Amino acid sequence: MSLEAVPAKNARAAQKGQQTKAVIVDAALNLAQQIGLEGLSIGAVAEITKMSKSGVFAHFGSREELQISVVREYHARFEQEVFYAALSVARGLPRLRAMFDNWMKRTSEEIDSGCIYISGATEFDDRPGPVRDALVESVSIWQAAVLRAIVQSQDEAHLAADADARQIAFEIHGVILALHYEARFLRVPGSIERARRGFDNLLERCATAAAPPPAAAKPPLKRVR
Amino acid sequence: MSLEAVPAKNARAAQKGQQTKAVIVDAALNLAQQIGLEGLSIGAVAEITKMSKSGVFAHFGSREELQISVVREYHARFEQEVFYAALSVARGLPRLRAMFDNWMKRTSEEIDSGCIYISGATEFDDRPGPVRDALVESVSIWQAAVLRAIVQSQDEAHLAADADARQIAFEIHGVILALHYEARFLRVPGSIERARRGFDNLLERCATAAAPPPAAAKPPLKRVR
Repeated sequence: MSLEAVPAKNARAAQKGQQTKAVIVDAALNLAQQIGLEGLSIGAVAEITKMSKSGVFAHFGSREELQISVVREYHARFEQEVFYAALSVARGLPRLRAMFDNWMKRTSEEIDSGCIYISGATEFDDRPGPVRDALVESVSIWQAAVLRAIVQSQDEAHLAADADARQIAFEIHGVILALHYEARFLRVPGSIERARRGFDNLLERCATAAAPPPAAAKPPLKRVR
Repeated sequence: MSLEAVPAKNARAAQKGQQTKAVIVDAALNLAQQIGLEGLSIGAVAEITKMSKSGVFAHFGSREELQISVVREYHARFEQEVFYAALSVARGLPRLRAMFDNWMKRTSEEIDSGCIYISGATEFDDRPGPVRDALVESVSIWQAAVLRAIVQSQDEAHLAADADARQIAFEIHGVILALHYEARFLRVPGSIERARRGFDNLLERCATAAAPPPAAAKPPLKRVR
């Protein structure tokens, strides 16, 4: 083996390691969406990925590190589907609407799998530590993005300048939480329509005459049970 | 022992059995509010009540029966504090406001202990069985009471007759869920004030000119962190 081949081989090994780690995190995230972050264990993840426990352990070092990796992966996907996907839409109310639509779409898709921001909140509300910290950080980043979109809507004169942006963000959060609860747990038909109406109701309260109307055609959301 | 003494003795034994059962359920409910219904076990409850496992088992027969008893006890307390306490207030909007205030008060008191209607929803949303059924039944009874109070507010001409009562109930639920999430998990200061404002905002949208104004003085709620 030539000396030059060594770094290339190391790089390939590192790349393979990253790929394996990604496969494990993906499987662990699926599992966490079913049974909760607290249900995750190195053993259970080894079983579903058909790896050895020591193999999984080698990639994370602890169950806690595995849980944190799952929170980060969830965050990356959420950000991609809900936030980045809305950035192509015009700044102000159109973008805020797009963010809400994407968020609602994701929440309704999760009817079958569960949102770890919601289940994680009840699992970790009184369990201090790095997993809780990772969850709070992740949710807070998203909430800051929602708040920014509301403030931008005020800057664009789409929402009244004297409206309380934090209050609007709080109420939007409530609509999403009610959607998740009523559709996923109670299985109440029409929850998606109610969530959309709830969002529209609160915009009506704060929108100015200059606010652009919602786009006419929205892709239909997957039906909930 | 005379023959007449036997029924009296049996009655005393049955009463004592009921008392012991109530002590166990109380301890189990406290535990469930900390660690979730799924965390409950006959063994853990035996430990905190300083009873034998077989002694606890004799009262319930299964972990599931213990969990259901906890849901029923929680329901009875919730009903007492939130619903019955509001029945002395005038029918219509005053009573609806009282129900919301009591509900919010209970939610904010639970900041330190946890609401099993909320944590139970994420624990049991995809676990069919009698515990899930007991939770859904209990929440549904409460939701029906909220809906009834809204419809009565319409009957009293305090809320617009053409307002969608189910939509109002959905949005009220969202406000409570956001309060629980933001105060208990994220520990955001001012969450209680935001919840109250959220409720007032949605009433303003639907209230008629005949609606009685909110009572001036409200007892201050316990501060959240």
